[in-house]
Amino acid sequence: MKLLVIHGPNLNLLGRREPEVYGRLTLAELNTSLQKHAADRGVEAAFFQANAEGAIIDALQGSDADGIVLNAAAYTHYSHAIADAVKAIGVPVVEVHLSNVFAREEFRRHSVIAAACKGSICGFSALSYRLAMDALIELLSNK
Amino acid sequence: MKLLVIHGPNLNLLGRREPEVYGRLTLAELNTSLQKHAADRGVEAAFFQANAEGAIIDALQGSDADGIVLNAAAYTHYSHAIADAVKAIGVPVVEVHLSNVFAREEFRRHSVIAAACKGSICGFSALSYRLAMDALIELLSNK
Amino acid sequence: MKLLVIHGPNLNLLGRREPEVYGRLTLAELNTSLQKHAADRGVEAAFFQANAEGAIIDALQGSDADGIVLNAAAYTHYSHAIADAVKAIGVPVVEVHLSNVFAREEFRRHSVIAAACKGSICGFSALSYRLAMDALIELLSNK
Amino acid sequence: MKLLVIHGPNLNLLGRREPEVYGRLTLAELNTSLQKHAADRGVEAAFFQANAEGAIIDALQGSDADGIVLNAAAYTHYSHAIADAVKAIGVPVVEVHLSNVFAREEFRRHSVIAAACKGSICGFSALSYRLAMDALIELLSNK
Amino acid sequence: MKLLVIHGPNLNLLGRREPEVYGRLTLAELNTSLQKHAADRGVEAAFFQANAEGAIIDALQGSDADGIVLNAAAYTHYSHAIADAVKAIGVPVVEVHLSNVFAREEFRRHSVIAAACKGSICGFSALSYRLAMDALIELLSNK
Amino acid sequence: MKLLVIHGPNLNLLGRREPEVYGRLTLAELNTSLQKHAADRGVEAAFFQANAEGAIIDALQGSDADGIVLNAAAYTHYSHAIADAVKAIGVPVVEVHLSNVFAREEFRRHSVIAAACKGSICGFSALSYRLAMDALIELLSNK
Amino acid sequence: MKLLVIHGPNLNLLGRREPEVYGRLTLAELNTSLQKHAADRGVEAAFFQANAEGAIIDALQGSDADGIVLNAAAYTHYSHAIADAVKAIGVPVVEVHLSNVFAREEFRRHSVIAAACKGSICGFSALSYRLAMDALIELLSNK
Amino acid sequence: MKLLVIHGPNLNLLGRREPEVYGRLTLAELNTSLQKHAADRGVEAAFFQANAEGAIIDALQGSDADGIVLNAAAYTHYSHAIADAVKAIGVPVVEVHLSNVFAREEFRRHSVIAAACKGSICGFSALSYRLAMDALIELLSNK
Amino acid sequence: MKLLVIHGPNLNLLGRREPEVYGRLTLAELNTSLQKHAADRGVEAAFFQANAEGAIIDALQGSDADGIVLNAAAYTHYSHAIADAVKAIGVPVVEVHLSNVFAREEFRRHSVIAAACKGSICGFSALSYRLAMDALIELLSNK
Amino acid sequence: MKLLVIHGPNLNLLGRREPEVYGRLTLAELNTSLQKHAADRGVEAAFFQANAEGAIIDALQGSDADGIVLNAAAYTHYSHAIADAVKAIGVPVVEVHLSNVFAREEFRRHSVIAAACKGSICGFSALSYRLAMDALIELLSNK
Amino acid sequence: MKLLVIHGPNLNLLGRREPEVYGRLTLAELNTSLQKHAADRGVEAAFFQANAEGAIIDALQGSDADGIVLNAAAYTHYSHAIADAVKAIGVPVVEVHLSNVFAREEFRRHSVIAAACKGSICGFSALSYRLAMDALIELLSNK
Amino acid sequence: MKLLVIHGPNLNLLGRREPEVYGRLTLAELNTSLQKHAADRGVEAAFFQANAEGAIIDALQGSDADGIVLNAAAYTHYSHAIADAVKAIGVPVVEVHLSNVFAREEFRRHSVIAAACKGSICGFSALSYRLAMDALIELLSNK
Repeated sequence: MKLLVIHGPNLNLLGRREPEVYGRLTLAELNTSLQKHAADRGVEAAFFQANAEGAIIDALQGSDADGIVLNAAAYTHYSHAIADAVKAIGVPVVEVHLSNVFAREEFRRHSVIAAACKGSICGFSALSYRLAMDALIELLSNK
Repeated sequence: MKLLVIHGPNLNLLGRREPEVYGRLTLAELNTSLQKHAADRGVEAAFFQANAEGAIIDALQGSDADGIVLNAAAYTHYSHAIADAVKAIGVPVVEVHLSNVFAREEFRRHSVIAAACKGSICGFSALSYRLAMDALIELLSNK
Repeated sequence: MKLLVIHGPNLNLLGRREPEVYGRLTLAELNTSLQKHAADRGVEAAFFQANAEGAIIDALQGSDADGIVLNAAAYTHYSHAIADAVKAIGVPVVEVHLSNVFAREEFRRHSVIAAACKGSICGFSALSYRLAMDALIELLSNK
Repeated sequence: MKLLVIHGPNLNLLGRREPEVYGRLTLAELNTSLQKHAADRGVEAAFFQANAEGAIIDALQGSDADGIVLNAAAYTHYSHAIADAVKAIGVPVVEVHLSNVFAREEFRRHSVIAAACKGSICGFSALSYRLAMDALIELLSNK
Repeated sequence: MKLLVIHGPNLNLLGRREPEVYGRLTLAELNTSLQKHAADRGVEAAFFQANAEGAIIDALQGSDADGIVLNAAAYTHYSHAIADAVKAIGVPVVEVHLSNVFAREEFRRHSVIAAACKGSICGFSALSYRLAMDALIELLSNK
Repeated sequence: MKLLVIHGPNLNLLGRREPEVYGRLTLAELNTSLQKHAADRGVEAAFFQANAEGAIIDALQGSDADGIVLNAAAYTHYSHAIADAVKAIGVPVVEVHLSNVFAREEFRRHSVIAAACKGSICGFSALSYRLAMDALIELLSNK
Repeated sequence: MKLLVIHGPNLNLLGRREPEVYGRLTLAELNTSLQKHAADRGVEAAFFQANAEGAIIDALQGSDADGIVLNAAAYTHYSHAIADAVKAIGVPVVEVHLSNVFAREEFRRHSVIAAACKGSICGFSALSYRLAMDALIELLSNK
Repeated sequence: MKLLVIHGPNLNLLGRREPEVYGRLTLAELNTSLQKHAADRGVEAAFFQANAEGAIIDALQGSDADGIVLNAAAYTHYSHAIADAVKAIGVPVVEVHLSNVFAREEFRRHSVIAAACKGSICGFSALSYRLAMDALIELLSNK
Repeated sequence: MKLLVIHGPNLNLLGRREPEVYGRLTLAELNTSLQKHAADRGVEAAFFQANAEGAIIDALQGSDADGIVLNAAAYTHYSHAIADAVKAIGVPVVEVHLSNVFAREEFRRHSVIAAACKGSICGFSALSYRLAMDALIELLSNK
Repeated sequence: MKLLVIHGPNLNLLGRREPEVYGRLTLAELNTSLQKHAADRGVEAAFFQANAEGAIIDALQGSDADGIVLNAAAYTHYSHAIADAVKAIGVPVVEVHLSNVFAREEFRRHSVIAAACKGSICGFSALSYRLAMDALIELLSNK
Repeated sequence: MKLLVIHGPNLNLLGRREPEVYGRLTLAELNTSLQKHAADRGVEAAFFQANAEGAIIDALQGSDADGIVLNAAAYTHYSHAIADAVKAIGVPVVEVHLSNVFAREEFRRHSVIAAACKGSICGFSALSYRLAMDALIELLSNK
Repeated sequence: MKLLVIHGPNLNLLGRREPEVYGRLTLAELNTSLQKHAADRGVEAAFFQANAEGAIIDALQGSDADGIVLNAAAYTHYSHAIADAVKAIGVPVVEVHLSNVFAREEFRRHSVIAAACKGSICGFSALSYRLAMDALIELLSNK
């Protein structure tokens, strides 16, 4: 089983960017910990980060993973193009957010992507991603 | 460590109510599986269901659990009183939903409770609850 | 054939509460007249009133009636929980209102319950209930 | 006692038009059944259908009926001119709809005519009309 | 100089329709008084009333008057088709209303026709029409 | 009979300010012509202009006129204080505008003052004022 | 194959009405050119224009054409009755507009009819109609 | 003279719940101080707290007090049922809030209950209640 | 201790202006009674009324009072400038209204000033002011 | 004459993506058929697809075509940047959509690009593109 | 060259009012520094502050400056009267704000004055004014 | 000190694109003039233009400048991703626009980026950029 983790815009700055909101873990450290989490469960994991909306769509379309964890960051709130890509590919996608997006600015309460995903998890920092991986592993194991 | 799982209105009908949306698992079966999930992790779990908003507030206030999994069902969308209770008690609460609420009627896209919770998980049927329990166990273990 | 008539919050004050809007018939008198209306048609009728949203949901879920007449009063305008209960049980429910809710305050023009019901009748005082009973009797007779 | 039943735009296509929504009864068959319903109660009934808003206003104004059953169809949602006509004539009008308009497209949830009517009945197919006739007969008998 | 006065839907009921809002003058009496008002000023006046939107558009298009006084009644609030007709003909049109539309229901505060007219006069009962005629006479005399 | 004409903010610049919208007549010239119009009808007229909202309220309150013509200019669209003053004094007030406010920016379509006035006239340049004077003279003569 | 072209309100003034928006071609000239366009493709074409909403509904219902080109003009923006007629008849309808309705007033950006049609074409003047005819011919040929 | 003080949901947690917003006084201490305030004025006072909307309605309906002080807490913002109860009983009710609800979250700025009350007082912590008691005593003394 | 009472626009007409809403007490009588109320409590009181927004801001800024009672009347609903003045001065301000603003026109339900004030009291006629004075006296005594 | 056809995000998945909405034709097959359509009319055609908004803007700016057919897919609904590009280049652009966007999700009813285009065609699958090419050929031939 | 700097309501409290938002510089100090800034560039500068909307309009109208720097403070968000004055005078006006109004309360994000000004500068404290002066000097030098 | 100037989508067409809105200066000429402006002040300046949102985010993140001038063009109105990047980097950013965005289409009045910036300058054509550079130089010099 292969999982792909996609990180959206500005997540490459993780650990440096507004650490009071997003924590001090860097993206490399996060990916390493997720890699280990996957390995512990006998699952392959790949990682991708892009600031460009088009590159995220390309990654979604081009992936050969069995399931995808997607943190679309700011694109969550307006990228109907990413939502269409999620709907277009035949692979289950789980939406994640590090912070509790419902407790922040008004515009972050609305996701145009959520409806196209299998499910959504937010508010648990790095744990959001691990829960999403666990969810995909269980969903894919039961198919 | 003790966890409380609160099920909101109409969840007592689980398995019989709109099974194409909510699945065929009954509430008793769900609770049994969650009980086992908790036991496997060395954690106590208690369960509560009520159709009454006030009873859910009472349960939140009266609980001695270390963490609470809350599926407020329809109250999710208008019960500022439940949200105030979540804010008032000093215990982490995780919001869960069986279905992907973002892919259903417009009113189900808006939660007045989410901002008061630690995080939110939806779309994975019974698995939503298990992920929430895992999240609370990890959050509470690291405190 | 058994019918259940559910009266929502403040309807226990009928006859005393804003009689220029709701008339001078008391709830007891209303129920007596509806009882007679049912008996005349060879149908059993039971009656329930509660001010509590949860109690109304319990009544909907616990009923063994073949059809239900529901005046949810103020809950009509925000109780998605009652609407979910109507959808959850397999019994036809008809929404009634004593007054013409469309000719009153703006918030009374919007029902969150109507879409879950079989049909809706308003504006005819006690007659609204009798028409609803007749509708259920005909619907149930033709099943 | 004389009743007038007014059918609005596209109701002449009844039985052929979206039968999954409106049923397979034709307008002629509906009128015949309503005629019989009236006769059974010793009441005269006349019938009118028009696709034109102005013709419906003319019919409302020109009627010598004691009560009017009005299915304004799509005009329900924007014809303030028909609503003004209902208010202008001194005759009780009951609004009816075949389908449960609250369970369909958003625009069908709002009636600009309801506030001008005595009451409103929807969701019972042909039975909506018969209930409206019964309501008018009772209202007019008690005057 | 020729003026045309167009009365919209339900104005044929003037004097009988909600006299507390529209007064007790009938349409015939109103037209007679306006006829005299025109004659006093050496101007021809013609009168037209219709309940049908299309007939009002036909009247606007077919008129050979030098100026038109238009009380579109309820169509004021939604008939973009009448507004387009006003814009399409090369003749100055003055919008009038008997009542002060700004002091009534919310929907009456918005005119889709006003922007297409030369000007707008409301609130003076029959006098609204006479002022509109005076306005047109002065506007046309100064052309 | 005495009339007061109140001109609101920036109307002192009339003739110089955006002449393509407001024309080339100065305020002094306008007042002279209105003075003459009043004199022709045997009526006294006084004139007042202020840029300050409070001064306009003072003028409304302090006037001993039998009727008031009010062009509140930009205050039309937000001064609930002027509207309250119009309601508070027992004198009929007619709202006027030089331009057709319905054919300009969106915010000019909404008057918070109109509902408190006897009637409203717009779009006829200086003629708007003369028609308003005529309206007041007729209204006051018939009292 | 027979096509019907329906022109809505004020289109009879084509060539004379706001030529900077709608061009200088008259309706007769337009119909002649469309007739020829149809003949060139071996297709019959009929033409209908009305200012009345009801007449357009009648034309839609009464047509024996295989496909219909509909320019509902101003009714496009509020006539749910015409939309219902389009849905009610079993014939493909293509919505057309001479001008680019998206580049004009806000209210012209919203069509209540488009969703009921097969497709929509706007912005190409007379060519909009010819493209719509070509579309219908191809759609009908492939059935 | 008898007064009833009703405390809504989560107010039983007073002193422990978000003390930076609601202060450190417990509900028992608050009631004691209000009891004394009443006694000082020769007035009887009773106290009631509930988390359940229905229980608050029951308390309003069942009270034999001459005046009621109501802090509906979160229900303030959506409980039309409590508002209906206030309107239904013939007893003056004064709305109070501990905090300045206008300086908090947007949803707290809107009260669906205020219009049914005699008056409203907020922002003075425990003093809000004492002012409300004083207001009722004066209102009732002058009856 | 010194208190300042500021009355906003049109309150100088108190007793004459819409007495069914505002009562028959004149402003002079109101001030006399409030003066006495203050004297009874050993507090100085000064009074100010203005129709002009700027004058009210000047009064707020220029006051040497320890607390201010502010009835901003119609300015309540749009004067962000007065709200800014309340925030800018270091003196507690209590908002008052004679009538229950929540039970009147929609625009009166929204105060742009309330959030800047210490608290808000409405609906008790002259008593609103006396309660506000009592509140300030207690707040200032406990500082 | 040269035409450029631009396909937006996810259209590279055509034939595989939601075939019940978009059909089973692949993008390569579509382009081949459009190439032939152009050749039949003696016109050159080039094709471009990108998932990236910036790449579509680059393509619009860099094109040497005489006319452009643009299916901006999801970007249609929020890319003001693409709309600005269409306005910036001096080349006629025709907006196309495969499906009838007005009959799908609410957000697809609004195009931020349409106003910048010459015209718009939707609902005819591949035929939408061919009609757009025909439109451009006729528009460009008549320049 | 002469410049006028207009400071709106509450800016006379600068340095004392919410210094965490507006800084500790007093208005006198600000004007002195701006005076020097102007002198350094060989330009005359005058200064005006008022809390009254009307006084600001008077200052705009009465100025003989070649350019005006306007900080309308709270009036920015609702004074259409000031906006009309800016439009009415033939002098370039530059809008300034000390704070970044876009990062504060929602109502401060909307300026009704900006569209009438030459340009707008905010967020740079006293520097906002100096940049505005530089802008006017350059604009006026190039005329 | 180093400054970076970022130009958003379609600004590479400057001088050719809608010159009546954006002027006739090309981007190369603008950059040359800004380079000189920087050099005159002893400051280094670099320049970047991209049509792609992701590229602009990359440029913001990758810059080693001490301050950034950002004209995000159309992205200003919806790119929360660029706003997040501005917030994420520790460098002051000043938003600029060539035109007065408040005097153009409605959507251009709203910036999702402004709140993340230090300040905002619009309406002065190329001068907007020079003022922004001056602002940054002063802000950075005073750090």
